[in-house]
Amino acid sequence: MQAFHYAHVEATPASGQPGLSVRWVMAENVRAPNFAMRVIDVQPGAATEHHSHGWEHEVFVLEGQGEVVDPRGQETTISVGTCVYVAPNEMHQFVNTGRGVLRFICVIPNPA
Amino acid sequence: MQAFHYAHVEATPASGQPGLSVRWVMAENVRAPNFAMRVIDVQPGAATEHHSHGWEHEVFVLEGQGEVVDPRGQETTISVGTCVYVAPNEMHQFVNTGRGVLRFICVIPNPA
Repeated sequence: MQAFHYAHVEATPASGQPGLSVRWVMAENVRAPNFAMRVIDVQPGAATEHHSHGWEHEVFVLEGQGEVVDPRGQETTISVGTCVYVAPNEMHQFVNTGRGVLRFICVIPNPA
Repeated sequence: MQAFHYAHVEATPASGQPGLSVRWVMAENVRAPNFAMRVIDVQPGAATEHHSHGWEHEVFVLEGQGEVVDPRGQETTISVGTCVYVAPNEMHQFVNTGRGVLRFICVIPNPA
């Protein structure tokens, strides 16, 4: 068992994506066998890419205000307590529309 | 893609464990293929069993004050933002030591 505050895990800037950083809070650091929990910070005015990949996301918003953009470009407001499930290969984007950081948990399966 | 507030998912009382309820926020409801996210509420004075099982937990505390008890009975304080990784087959218990609800995310792999 390991217990620690998420902020004690280093936030790594996402390469080529200004205003975006990722903490791999429970992953290789704890030898998690099946899936990894990350805490992602999106700064005001920043966004993740509108992109897709072959694995799912399970997202839980911890702080801030934003939008999630679906495959058709449709926006849904997200805030503290919003869950977002993104299926494998589904286009998606997270946009910070607030004045503070948009912070969310994002769980993904380990690479196959 | 599905986006919804976690509180819109029904909280199911845990059978035989007073003061404990579970919301399966992203699981069969979204056809999650690999792992399930739950939000667990432990009422003041209540606790989960000191128990173990063959799968891991990835826990993130959302609200409240508590302790996690390790295999030797050693207690570690947990509060908002604490991550707890529990390995497969490791004894563990979550105890609410505060005045309000102890609420945490707990991610588990889908049953094999």
